[in-house]
Amino acid sequence: MTQDVLLAEATRGNLIESRHYGAISVVDAHGKTVFAAGDVSTPIYPRSTVKSLQALPLLTEGAADKLSLPDEALALACASHQGEPAHTAVAADMLGRVGMDYTALECGAHWPLDARSGRALACAGEEPTTLHNCCSGKHAGFVCLACATGQNPEHYIRPTHPIMQKIAHTLAEVTGVPHTDANRGTDGCAIPTWAIPLSALALAFARFATGTGLSADQANAAKRLRTAQLAHPFMVAGTGEFDTVVMQALAPRVITKMGAEGVRTIALPEKGLGIAIKCRNGSVQAAEAVAAALIARFNQEDHPILAHYMRRELKNWNGSVVGEFRVSSNLAPEQFPSVASS
Amino acid sequence: MTQDVLLAEATRGNLIESRHYGAISVVDAHGKTVFAAGDVSTPIYPRSTVKSLQALPLLTEGAADKLSLPDEALALACASHQGEPAHTAVAADMLGRVGMDYTALECGAHWPLDARSGRALACAGEEPTTLHNCCSGKHAGFVCLACATGQNPEHYIRPTHPIMQKIAHTLAEVTGVPHTDANRGTDGCAIPTWAIPLSALALAFARFATGTGLSADQANAAKRLRTAQLAHPFMVAGTGEFDTVVMQALAPRVITKMGAEGVRTIALPEKGLGIAIKCRNGSVQAAEAVAAALIARFNQEDHPILAHYMRRELKNWNGSVVGEFRVSSNLAPEQFPSVASS
Repeated sequence: MTQDVLLAEATRGNLIESRHYGAISVVDAHGKTVFAAGDVSTPIYPRSTVKSLQALPLLTEGAADKLSLPDEALALACASHQGEPAHTAVAADMLGRVGMDYTALECGAHWPLDARSGRALACAGEEPTTLHNCCSGKHAGFVCLACATGQNPEHYIRPTHPIMQKIAHTLAEVTGVPHTDANRGTDGCAIPTWAIPLSALALAFARFATGTGLSADQANAAKRLRTAQLAHPFMVAGTGEFDTVVMQALAPRVITKMGAEGVRTIALPEKGLGIAIKCRNGSVQAAEAVAAALIARFNQEDHPILAHYMRRELKNWNGSVVGEFRVSSNLAPEQFPSVASS
Repeated sequence: MTQDVLLAEATRGNLIESRHYGAISVVDAHGKTVFAAGDVSTPIYPRSTVKSLQALPLLTEGAADKLSLPDEALALACASHQGEPAHTAVAADMLGRVGMDYTALECGAHWPLDARSGRALACAGEEPTTLHNCCSGKHAGFVCLACATGQNPEHYIRPTHPIMQKIAHTLAEVTGVPHTDANRGTDGCAIPTWAIPLSALALAFARFATGTGLSADQANAAKRLRTAQLAHPFMVAGTGEFDTVVMQALAPRVITKMGAEGVRTIALPEKGLGIAIKCRNGSVQAAEAVAAALIARFNQEDHPILAHYMRRELKNWNGSVVGEFRVSSNLAPEQFPSVASS
C-alpha cells in the first residue's frame, strides 16, 4: 500500500494549523494511469460521486424518454443538492410524472443543507420532507425507473430489489469491479455503496467522460447526463457550491462531483480523462482544493474560480483574513512540468 | 518531530472509511509527562480551548466581584456556546452590568451554531447579532474587565490593547511559553491566538485543575471558574454538545473544552492532571472520541456517555446504523495496563 500524500493544508498566522492527506488517481478511458499519488488501490466507498453512473439505467432502460424527463431532472438525478426550492420542485415534478409524491422516497428526511432555505422552510411553518434530502433527485430517478419499467418501487433501496440490482450491475460494468455483498456498505441515503479502488473510480469517469469502454446505449446515456449537468449546474449542487460554480465557469469542459467523506470525481471529456480523489480524513474542503488544482493541470484551465479553490482565504467573523486553505505545493500546477496528457 | 498517531477512525460496512491522526499530551501540574503520543512539541494554536485561562483576569483584577457576575456568566466567559436563547441572555446581562450592549462586542456576528435556534430567530424576523457569536461570553468578559478596571473597551481585540496584553501575559504565565508577535495568529473571533506546544497546553490545564504553579490569586480564580463551569455546563457549550453532556455526567471530576481545528483540553482536578489533544486535520469528532477515552483512562471513569463518544454509531437518515466513529484501539482504555497516574 503506497503512502498517502499531503493534499492540502490550512494556515493561520505564520503556521500551518491543519494538514490533510489522501490519494489521487488520473486515468484515461483505456485504463492507462496518467497520474497517481497515494494509495489508489485499497477499496474506498465512492459515496455520492457515482450518482452519474447510478443514473445511467434511467436512460438506457428508456424511462427518461418514456416520462419525457427534462434536462433539469436528469441533472438532479446526478446531484447532491442543497435542498433549495428549485431542487425540491424538480424532484416533486419527477415523482409526479409517475403518479407518486415524496412519500415514495426511502432516503429519509433532513433539513436543507442550505441554511437559508432551512430557515425559510421553518418560517413557513413547515418541516423538511424526503424532497429536501440532498439525494432526493437520485431517489426520484430510482422511483421513475421502477414505475416506467413496470416494477413496484417499494423497498427500492434494498440490495435485493431489481432496481438496486440493476444499479449494482451497471456500476460493476462501468468501474470494472465486482459489486457484491463483500464490498457493500450502506450510504447515508440508505442505498448500498460499494467499495472500489480509487483507480477504478477514475477509470469509470474517464469512460463516462468519453463513452469509450461503454456499450452504445450507455455511451449515449452518459452523453445526455453530461449535457444535462453542464446545462444545469445549479441542479447538481446549489448556491455557492463547488460543483455548481466550477461547472458554471468551465462548462462544457469539466463535470465534477462531490461525495461524502472527502471523495471527489472529475470527468474531462475533451482530454478523455477521469479523476478520482480521496482525502483520507474525509475533508470536503481538502478534496475541493485538490480538484481545482487537478482541473487546472489536466485540462490546462486558467480560471479565477480554480485559483480561488486552490488557495482560499480564511476569514474571521469580522471579515479579516486570518489564514488560508490551500492545496499542497506539490500538487499545485506550477510545480508540474508541461502537461503531457492527451 | 515525533510521528503523529492514529486517533480515531470511521467505519462503514466492513471497511474503515476515514482515519484521523494527531497528538496527545497528559501532564501533571509539576510538568511531568504522564503520557504522550505524537508530536507534542511543535507549536499549535490552542484556539478556544484556553478560554478558561483567558477568563482568569476577570477574577484576579476584581471585575467579577465588582460587577457581582453570577456563576452562569463566569461559565459563559469560558464557553464556545451554540447561540441558544439562554446563552445570549447571559451575554446581554454581562454587558448590561457595565452599561453596554451587543454593539460593544468586536467578535462579529453569525447565525447560531444551534440550527434550531437559528430557525427560531429567523421566524421571529430577526438577524443574528454579536450575542449569537459562539465567543460572545468571552468577549463580554473582556468588555466587563475593561469597564470595571476603568479602561476604554474600544478595540479590545487588538494585540496592543491593555486588555489583550493582560490576557497575553496571563497565558504566557500559565502555559510557561512566551506570547509574542512571533507566535501570534488571529482567532475566528478576531482576538489573538498564540501558538504553543501541546505539552505546554496540557501543563496549563494541570495548573488550572489544581492551582499548583499559579499565583494565589490565579489559583483562587481558577477554582471559581472550575466551580462555575461544573455548576453550569449548559453555559459552556449547549444542547447535545460534548462539553455540556460530559460535564453534566461527570461533574465535579472533569472540566473539558473544545477548540476549533481539532484541539481539546481536559482538566482532572482530583488526579491533578491536564490533557491536551490536537487532531492534525482539525476533526472535532476525532478529538471528542480521544477525549472520552482519555477521561475514562486517566480519571478511571466508567460512564455510558464516555462509551458513547468512544464508539459512536453512524446512522443514515432513516436511522439505521451504517458504521461507527471510534477511538483508535491503541488509545481505548482496555488496551492500557492498570492506570498509574497519581
